[in-house]
Amino acid sequence: MNGSIDLPLDVAELSFTASGDARVRRSVLPSGVRILSEHVPGVRSATLGYWVAVGSRDERAATPGATDASGRESGFGSTHFLEHLLFKGTDKRTAFDIAIAFDAVGGEHNALTAKEHTCYYAKVRDSDVGMAVDTLTDMLTSSLLDPVEFENERGVILEELAMAEDDPADVASENLFSAVLGDHELGRPIGGTPQAIREVSRNAVLEHYRANYRPQDLVITAAGAVDHDDLVARVTDALVDAGWDLDTPARPVERRTLTTSTITRRSALIVVRRPIEQVHLLVGMPGLTASDDRRMTMSVLSSILGGGMSSRLFQEVREKRGLAYTVYSFAASYSDAGIFGMYGACSAAKARQVADLMLDELRRLAADGVTDEELRRAHGQLSGASALALEESETRMSRLGRAEITLGEFIDLDESLRRLALVTAEDVRTLARDLLNQPLSLSAVGAVDDDVFAGFGEDTKE
Amino acid sequence: MNGSIDLPLDVAELSFTASGDARVRRSVLPSGVRILSEHVPGVRSATLGYWVAVGSRDERAATPGATDASGRESGFGSTHFLEHLLFKGTDKRTAFDIAIAFDAVGGEHNALTAKEHTCYYAKVRDSDVGMAVDTLTDMLTSSLLDPVEFENERGVILEELAMAEDDPADVASENLFSAVLGDHELGRPIGGTPQAIREVSRNAVLEHYRANYRPQDLVITAAGAVDHDDLVARVTDALVDAGWDLDTPARPVERRTLTTSTITRRSALIVVRRPIEQVHLLVGMPGLTASDDRRMTMSVLSSILGGGMSSRLFQEVREKRGLAYTVYSFAASYSDAGIFGMYGACSAAKARQVADLMLDELRRLAADGVTDEELRRAHGQLSGASALALEESETRMSRLGRAEITLGEFIDLDESLRRLALVTAEDVRTLARDLLNQPLSLSAVGAVDDDVFAGFGEDTKE
Repeated sequence: MNGSIDLPLDVAELSFTASGDARVRRSVLPSGVRILSEHVPGVRSATLGYWVAVGSRDERAATPGATDASGRESGFGSTHFLEHLLFKGTDKRTAFDIAIAFDAVGGEHNALTAKEHTCYYAKVRDSDVGMAVDTLTDMLTSSLLDPVEFENERGVILEELAMAEDDPADVASENLFSAVLGDHELGRPIGGTPQAIREVSRNAVLEHYRANYRPQDLVITAAGAVDHDDLVARVTDALVDAGWDLDTPARPVERRTLTTSTITRRSALIVVRRPIEQVHLLVGMPGLTASDDRRMTMSVLSSILGGGMSSRLFQEVREKRGLAYTVYSFAASYSDAGIFGMYGACSAAKARQVADLMLDELRRLAADGVTDEELRRAHGQLSGASALALEESETRMSRLGRAEITLGEFIDLDESLRRLALVTAEDVRTLARDLLNQPLSLSAVGAVDDDVFAGFGEDTKE
Repeated sequence: MNGSIDLPLDVAELSFTASGDARVRRSVLPSGVRILSEHVPGVRSATLGYWVAVGSRDERAATPGATDASGRESGFGSTHFLEHLLFKGTDKRTAFDIAIAFDAVGGEHNALTAKEHTCYYAKVRDSDVGMAVDTLTDMLTSSLLDPVEFENERGVILEELAMAEDDPADVASENLFSAVLGDHELGRPIGGTPQAIREVSRNAVLEHYRANYRPQDLVITAAGAVDHDDLVARVTDALVDAGWDLDTPARPVERRTLTTSTITRRSALIVVRRPIEQVHLLVGMPGLTASDDRRMTMSVLSSILGGGMSSRLFQEVREKRGLAYTVYSFAASYSDAGIFGMYGACSAAKARQVADLMLDELRRLAADGVTDEELRRAHGQLSGASALALEESETRMSRLGRAEITLGEFIDLDESLRRLALVTAEDVRTLARDLLNQPLSLSAVGAVDDDVFAGFGEDTKE
């Protein structure tokens, strides 16, 4: 295959060429467990990911003992709390056994909670793939959620949140999401708030675990030195060993609907005053959803505007004026909403100038478009960076997970580059205009007050 | 070869097997330029590094127009300042041309200044190796140090330092180096201070450039999809093109003497009070030099004490007590001094407890040693992690640079693992005792005062 391939939930087996020599195979077990692997010839390591399509956005305020129609009544912060607890022991393995398993072979082992999914992953040498499958499967299926470990981990998570609170770039970014996405559930912080973590009960986290970690929820992806048949056999053995019912047929959970939610912005301006050297500034607005046809255009736009040392933001803010060390643009997409933003960090005296420059550059894109030379360069940058990234099995493992969990479609590198080549200067200009027609928000953390940004963005409108 | 191989400065050609199928070749041009490459079969990208063995430690307070015997009179902060300026244009390439060159192919391109060296590097696809050689060579040999760009970049570097100043972990770490290494030149911050950056003149940076970027200073290392003969030919062409004199014979600069300096500690305790959530704590003491035979023992010690989730610090501080999210140990080695340290971040109320726990764990190592099981696990962790790391051409490129610039000896993976396997429990215990016989320092940044740490480390002595 060259192109894209659908990943229907009720097709048991699929096999196709991914990129270069790599081959993707996908199996859906009768119980609804999905296993996708990408065998890369000649490498001696593999990355495995165990995914469930539940993230911070799916949390509701806890009502002890009650669940809503989707079974997702779990309390704010419980997704991230559960992610921590799955490392804390099963009836076969203590927390220390789990830690030892990967440390003893020099493997990498971690997890991440996102807004729409949670993923537990490991990178190991080829000879350790069996250990990784056994350990990850046991963690996912058989966590004890021990009450003593639960209270200990509450302290650890509060420290993690304290660390994030001390990171002004992190705070400014969370506030931009909140400002742009308003009361939409995507606007909440992934890790929960300290108050939510102090309040959440073991029962709420247990409820979340039972409701969302069933066979039909589980997606396993692997890339590198893996053999698909071997992987399926090992996973099946490990799931049976865990006592999971693999015989009762179940269809994989339906994917989220890829649609566009109505966003009501919470606020135009969130400024947190802190006595620090730099101001961390973000300017942003609603962006594109994960299924939006304009996502390739967005990649080109963000590459040209703020994607590297030759980008317009880097040139105007850092190279020509020496105002900042870091400045870039970014786009994040979810099933029903997205965000586009620009980030810069500078001294307080220059914060307004940098905010104005960032907006000016986006307006210049909307007014004058981009040159053919910039289009060519963006194409080269995105294709080269993709090729380098695909040398890492982590990237391929993640790509499989996103395809299965969010998109329902696998798009190979050649097809991505083909779509990229179709993006025109007019497409970029139109998208820049569309972005500027969205309500604009600004978030800042540093030694500034609201009035520094008075009237920001109100002078001219596209 | 399996083992180690010397890299004498006056041998023009060397060739040996590195690890697995990879092959290292080394050429010393008559002008003193050294080129080392490691060809890795089957990969489609390469990482290149251009090194000079000059770092922040080599700076002296500026005396305009004057140079000392080593030609290294350049003013504090000038090493890092020069690193920035080499991206700002030559007579053939503007700063924008340099930025475009790598952006247009999606390559990675950056530089780092360290205490004993400076390195400019790029990772690109195989087809872009020629471009990378041409661009890096031009940057290194022909920088204009344009006065207007110089002033602009002064602003950028001040922002970079402001960013570091706002990072409490970074500040605590710099202060530990200063506390442990006292007035030794390794104790100074790599990037310079804001005052030094405000004061340094273009003339001082130019002097630094002329004195330290000569043919006999330059070391080029590459790993991945590179052919050595092709690389040497391309580098030679690019150097001739830059007008460098490659005909006048010169011997590569002598390496630093690998010896042990006498360290007079500056202070036992540096506490910076800041109104933030966490206290960033470091406890440390003088460690091992780069040539110390006990460096393998140090790797094992640090792995067992604070090298992963199964390490003693992680278990005692995070897993059993939930006091911190991050806790680990580390060792840094230089030609004539080194440092060993432990890091943890926690709430202010628990700072003393965490500091005591860290020291207790090191003392427990010194008193009771380690188990055979821990030794085996450390060996597995270090060998597995090394194997995974060597899958990255960045790692191989860096390893070549360190071998050539610092050690004068290339040690392959098998030899490293052989030496690792020789480390005994008694070696680890003896090293822990040796560390505890060094003066102990503590650095903290957060909502604490000095008195929180009153009497720290004075209760019992090994």
